[in-house]
Amino acid sequence: MANQSEHEEHEAMEMPPREPNTIYVGKKPTMNYVLACLTQINNGGDFVTVKARGRAISRAVDVAQVLTKRFATDIKVQSIAINTEQVKSTITGGMSNVSSIEIKLGK
Amino acid sequence: MANQSEHEEHEAMEMPPREPNTIYVGKKPTMNYVLACLTQINNGGDFVTVKARGRAISRAVDVAQVLTKRFATDIKVQSIAINTEQVKSTITGGMSNVSSIEIKLGK
Repeated sequence: MANQSEHEEHEAMEMPPREPNTIYVGKKPTMNYVLACLTQINNGGDFVTVKARGRAISRAVDVAQVLTKRFATDIKVQSIAINTEQVKSTITGGMSNVSSIEIKLGK
Repeated sequence: MANQSEHEEHEAMEMPPREPNTIYVGKKPTMNYVLACLTQINNGGDFVTVKARGRAISRAVDVAQVLTKRFATDIKVQSIAINTEQVKSTITGGMSNVSSIEIKLGK
């Protein structure tokens, strides 16, 4: 899940945060993303979307739980969606599937 | 949520499938759980619940995606819930939090 990063620059779910109010969870410590979410919520929007792919999915769930249970108890999980994305492997050149999650949080 | 991982995985493996129609996802290969779900669906119930904790959460999402996209396209994700569970660490003896996911699949 790490070797395809440069290949789907054009995909909507790319890791650079293009969509507003969206935090893309990757390999950094959970608290980094929790703080990013808090900043997002305090700077305007009453909602934030947490997205992750592959093994980062469990961290995205951690982020949502730490945020809603400890740091922003007025924020609730609004919806959770799971999906499959096709990514091209840099090693084999073939396409492979990777699961993704999208957790919408809001007041 | 990193320092309890050893224990959390241990607990996940211990979780006996008490609830009917529930598959507990742990460390085994994804396909093992997909097959378990298929067996469950074919042996009666038109639904199955996939549960996981900690790092197994991403595998649970994989299981749901492989099942619904490839092996049982009549099965859909009905609901997804995330939660936090308290587990006792065997190392420190203290309580720590671990995220969990529950994916309901059905026709």
